[in-house]
Amino acid sequence: MRSKSATAAPEIEALISLLAKVPGLGPRSARRAALQLLKKKDQLMIPLAVALSEAAEKVRACCNCGALDTQDPCVLCSNPERDDKLICVVAEVGDVWALERAGAFKGRYHVLGGVLSALDGVRPEDLRIARLIERASRADVREVILALSATVDGQTTAHYLAERLQPLNITISRLSHGVPVGGELDLLDDGTLFAALQSRRPS
Amino acid sequence: MRSKSATAAPEIEALISLLAKVPGLGPRSARRAALQLLKKKDQLMIPLAVALSEAAEKVRACCNCGALDTQDPCVLCSNPERDDKLICVVAEVGDVWALERAGAFKGRYHVLGGVLSALDGVRPEDLRIARLIERASRADVREVILALSATVDGQTTAHYLAERLQPLNITISRLSHGVPVGGELDLLDDGTLFAALQSRRPS
Repeated sequence: MRSKSATAAPEIEALISLLAKVPGLGPRSARRAALQLLKKKDQLMIPLAVALSEAAEKVRACCNCGALDTQDPCVLCSNPERDDKLICVVAEVGDVWALERAGAFKGRYHVLGGVLSALDGVRPEDLRIARLIERASRADVREVILALSATVDGQTTAHYLAERLQPLNITISRLSHGVPVGGELDLLDDGTLFAALQSRRPS
Repeated sequence: MRSKSATAAPEIEALISLLAKVPGLGPRSARRAALQLLKKKDQLMIPLAVALSEAAEKVRACCNCGALDTQDPCVLCSNPERDDKLICVVAEVGDVWALERAGAFKGRYHVLGGVLSALDGVRPEDLRIARLIERASRADVREVILALSATVDGQTTAHYLAERLQPLNITISRLSHGVPVGGELDLLDDGTLFAALQSRRPS
């Protein structure tokens, strides 16, 4: 006998409760999503199930940089045209994708797998920092770019990494702060305006 | 060689583009969802793939009422304790779930599979109306409740159904309009306030 709250079949309820755990979906939207999926079985539901199991099976973290790919080392690490002298440190794989979409960087990446956080209990040993030091210690590396978010945790992590990397005698840089391209001045927060003024440059 | 826009592995891009079609997720949130899923392979990604294929395989529309279930006729149609004299007509399966969660109705359901819509090109023959007339024609049916949304399309559908059902000489009713329980008067729209005043009852 089904419980009163579980009015749908157990298979549907199981699907809804798993969908509700997907970031971006809540309990209500998971219910709507499940219904739409059941309506579009052949166009969406079954292909999605296949894509999920295929990606789960084939996609692995690159042993070198930590990015996700079906090959290891990943395409970014094994591409001979990229510059070995530059390492760009990011928190998450999504940051690599964002930088690649921008097409602004042609060096190597290093994915930390998060940022240091006292609140969430993320310590240095939880991140891929040892491997970063190892990679940055190679003779050909000239610069490490700390491309971390401008949040407290992101900047704490950048500060910590800068200290750890200092003995290597390489250039350590960070992304600049300032007015976003296309951004309106009067919509910007004080911190960004202050930073944009501080790091103003001759035009 | 991967295109510039497809920076991630094709398996990941395929997953993202399918996730983006799930109602509630867009291109950006699909990207975030895919990353989180890849991070939680065993707890979320693989179970979700399994739940999707299981539900796709086992869940069918009930031949009688149109609700979704793993058995046919569904548990609601085959439950002997429910009242055969009442049929509650709803647009979608989600409406059945909502009414069942409320626990306010103990009769039978009939799912139309949508509402009439001139804009979306939904005609009477696209909905499960013939089957409703057939069910409502049975000797023991006493009342059909049209539980359709208070939208233009919902009310058009209710009007159309009321006309089609009239020759059967049974009671045809609709849900009442009024102040939602727990709703604040000054936040309500004029139409609802008007309806709530019109159908006021002695206290």
